[in-house]
Amino acid sequence: MTDHSHEHSEKDEPNHAPDQAGEGAPVNPVLVDVIRGDMIESRHRGSVAIIDSHGQVELSIGDVLSPVFARSGIKPIQALALVETGAARAFGLGSAQVALACSSHNGANTHVDIIRTWLGKIGCTEDDLECGTSLPWTDEAKQELYATGEAATTAHDNCSGKHTGFLTVCKHLDFSVQGYTRFEHPMQQRLLGVLEQMTGMQLFEAPKAIDGCGIPTIGIPLGNIAFAMARLGDPHDQPKERQEACRRIRTAMAHEPYLVAGKDRFCTRVIGALGQAALVKTGAEGVYCATLTDKKLGVAIKIDDGSRRAAEAVMIRLLQNLNLITDHAKGQLLNLLEPAIQSRAGKMVGLVRIADGIPS
Amino acid sequence: MTDHSHEHSEKDEPNHAPDQAGEGAPVNPVLVDVIRGDMIESRHRGSVAIIDSHGQVELSIGDVLSPVFARSGIKPIQALALVETGAARAFGLGSAQVALACSSHNGANTHVDIIRTWLGKIGCTEDDLECGTSLPWTDEAKQELYATGEAATTAHDNCSGKHTGFLTVCKHLDFSVQGYTRFEHPMQQRLLGVLEQMTGMQLFEAPKAIDGCGIPTIGIPLGNIAFAMARLGDPHDQPKERQEACRRIRTAMAHEPYLVAGKDRFCTRVIGALGQAALVKTGAEGVYCATLTDKKLGVAIKIDDGSRRAAEAVMIRLLQNLNLITDHAKGQLLNLLEPAIQSRAGKMVGLVRIADGIPS
Repeated sequence: MTDHSHEHSEKDEPNHAPDQAGEGAPVNPVLVDVIRGDMIESRHRGSVAIIDSHGQVELSIGDVLSPVFARSGIKPIQALALVETGAARAFGLGSAQVALACSSHNGANTHVDIIRTWLGKIGCTEDDLECGTSLPWTDEAKQELYATGEAATTAHDNCSGKHTGFLTVCKHLDFSVQGYTRFEHPMQQRLLGVLEQMTGMQLFEAPKAIDGCGIPTIGIPLGNIAFAMARLGDPHDQPKERQEACRRIRTAMAHEPYLVAGKDRFCTRVIGALGQAALVKTGAEGVYCATLTDKKLGVAIKIDDGSRRAAEAVMIRLLQNLNLITDHAKGQLLNLLEPAIQSRAGKMVGLVRIADGIPS
Repeated sequence: MTDHSHEHSEKDEPNHAPDQAGEGAPVNPVLVDVIRGDMIESRHRGSVAIIDSHGQVELSIGDVLSPVFARSGIKPIQALALVETGAARAFGLGSAQVALACSSHNGANTHVDIIRTWLGKIGCTEDDLECGTSLPWTDEAKQELYATGEAATTAHDNCSGKHTGFLTVCKHLDFSVQGYTRFEHPMQQRLLGVLEQMTGMQLFEAPKAIDGCGIPTIGIPLGNIAFAMARLGDPHDQPKERQEACRRIRTAMAHEPYLVAGKDRFCTRVIGALGQAALVKTGAEGVYCATLTDKKLGVAIKIDDGSRRAAEAVMIRLLQNLNLITDHAKGQLLNLLEPAIQSRAGKMVGLVRIADGIPS
């Protein structure tokens, strides 16, 4: 995998040229059908990579070589800097903060309260967060905010944990706090280095864009994203500090699934049921990543059209196919395993169904 | 168009068999690219039909023959029964109620207040609405509800106007109110008749499913949906009562664009800017319909994956290509014409761009 990927990190590699990934390129298979009555109403195409921690391909569906913005799917990789620099230890952070650094959280009171206390610990305020202000993720969390009478702040943004993690590193390493989201800032350069080591690719000249929370997002082939996720679970070839940091991050996510996302969220429910065996992480635009620690595998899914419902359906099916869903977990995850579409009066009128594109 | 469509209303027609519309079928073209930085991050495939009121094809992209659930895209057609039966006149309804019968509204106070008064007029209550209870559509309308301290009711559901219209017809024609959403109920049978006449198809044996609001939704080829929308604008071959009802519905939508959807909504903004020239109507799962009255055209769009952002981008481009967007309207619709993707801190980081699948 590593060598293979290096080929694809070259700037002039055809797969990296966005315009050439259009109509001429092979079409990704349909992974998910959305059924209403007995008709297919909508369909989702996409690609999947499952790679082991030595770079061997376990499963490859569709285009896994063109660059993909992994978005929040790789927050657990980005959180490595917080732990391996010693910043987390220096500021006395626990699993809660480390899990929040890996999170796309709901912005419920619990999440926000921990972020605010943490900001205080490092001598920062919500004004230092450059993620932007946004409403909490779910209707319930929004209503919780409205009930307080307060306005949303940067702390409610789903990326505020990741950003507070960045600020913690900046404080610890004496980087300037202002502008920490800019590509040229040493914080982002450090993250780029971590990402290069974990994906096995040179990324300095990879496609770049700005994520929803203002930091650079880097275009990485899906196979290499999966490889990085596998190495988070089994960092056998990484330096000692990173091995320890990977262990710390896995433990934190498994101990605090609520802080990784929140009530009713897919990530929280799956990690809550399966622990380190399936550390799943959502990203925007139809990305889903996972570290399957026991299997020493990494998973990366990208739905072409950006659909989260499809990415979730594919992820749960992959976990099933890998026999990771225990009988006990099955009971907890039932409505994720066979996602129904209900009318608003609560009648089952359809379902989200895995298509032939995913082998069973 | 009419004859052609009749072929496709046969039960054993291959295009009607859901399983055969899968991987073997030709793949719809990419209509919309979602760009981040200078890379295509996501893409949306789909099909488009523009048909004139005599059934001539003006534009056909992708598969326009397989059945599609038009969902709320054809509410203006479903509202015909309210007017042409004389029910609207009998209960003294004005443009506000007729526009709400065609609406997928935000559930803001204005919408809900009119629905409640209207229910009173026909001797019904919110309990008679079988659409189900749901929260208002937008965050702003949700917050408006929370501020009242009340819980959401059936009146807040985006389909409550259409359903109150159904109840009005039931009262006027002495149909039982209970069960008015069932396929066998005379209300739904009457709607099926209207739909058959307007689409030029026999639909009794067409694919059927239950819509989000509990009524039957019928699988209709995209071309025939567009044909029905064209006839709403130019019902030259329809009975006198229907011609008058079509006029009434067009006038109501053009006079009350806020009631057709609500603040910040695409339908409201486009109708507000263009009036009867572009009576656009959103549907779930990536459907968008329009009656282009002056051009005597009907439009139907279906995005394969169900994306609304893509359907909106395609609709506005079609209106542009047909020279319907006046200079004055251009100013009002600027951010719909070139939809930007912003970071949450407000920086422009990408755009939703029409792909080669749509001719310019």
